[in-house]
Amino acid sequence: MVEIRKTLSKLKPKIVHFILSIDKEGKPSGMVADWATTVSYNPPLIAVALKKKGFTHKLIQQSKEFVVSIATKDLEHAISSFGYVSGEKIDKFKKTDLKTLPAKKIKTPILKEAKYNFECKLNKEIDVGDHFLYVGEVVQAHENSKKEILLNFGRKNNIRIFGTR
Amino acid sequence: MVEIRKTLSKLKPKIVHFILSIDKEGKPSGMVADWATTVSYNPPLIAVALKKKGFTHKLIQQSKEFVVSIATKDLEHAISSFGYVSGEKIDKFKKTDLKTLPAKKIKTPILKEAKYNFECKLNKEIDVGDHFLYVGEVVQAHENSKKEILLNFGRKNNIRIFGTR
Repeated sequence: MVEIRKTLSKLKPKIVHFILSIDKEGKPSGMVADWATTVSYNPPLIAVALKKKGFTHKLIQQSKEFVVSIATKDLEHAISSFGYVSGEKIDKFKKTDLKTLPAKKIKTPILKEAKYNFECKLNKEIDVGDHFLYVGEVVQAHENSKKEILLNFGRKNNIRIFGTR
Repeated sequence: MVEIRKTLSKLKPKIVHFILSIDKEGKPSGMVADWATTVSYNPPLIAVALKKKGFTHKLIQQSKEFVVSIATKDLEHAISSFGYVSGEKIDKFKKTDLKTLPAKKIKTPILKEAKYNFECKLNKEIDVGDHFLYVGEVVQAHENSKKEILLNFGRKNNIRIFGTR
């Protein structure tokens, strides 16, 4: 028998997603998520699992919208700030100097340096263990960069390895 | 603006998963799925999106269990049979000569040539557009092969490209 959690963590590479939403004043925050996948084409739906003890899910619960941004190398520098620090305590956008652009159909901004941005309206929230799963209907897609999708290859000697194909 | 469905299909590479379950007589069938992700570590949960018009989801609805098998090169030959033909009409295991092993905690068998096999008990079924999303609690994990995980790199000149890192 192999340990379940350890084995699940070996399911790599994973596409690096930035999940963004806004607070009541329209201020954006977000986090990095590996656990996301398309779940329907008609209508187009994306499901994203976010930690219950995080901050981003609270924004989505309030605003009923989020952006899924597919990272490139240009966003790698922001992963540690977006991945492992709570947006309740810091302004992640100020700290990382990420550039945003207005979305077309929702209020949450998109990331200028992402490869793709998907504007999503919240369709369903599902309680799944230590995460909430947010299913969003994609109402607009953007291609913002010609660079390759950034992948999470997992840890080697306890250091996270990111790269492209 | 870019077309939503087409843009979603560019989210590659995806890990190739075989999703297996059994009918009332214990006979296994299954399909290939790209749209799967871990969604919780505690308890360990995997979510898998399966086409509503397919056959495998009917088996899961009945048996309340499934296996998620992570493919290697050794399973590439079976992708077309498992991916694009209904298990209602053919015995996919006979057709592809895939070797199975008994699972430890459920009745659905695991794939001998998979890299990892996860035995799952159905935790939740969620209706998501043209798919059902099955959330399974992983009750046992297996490592069955030292080979690398097989990845779906998408289509090139309308041919599906599979490979490893």
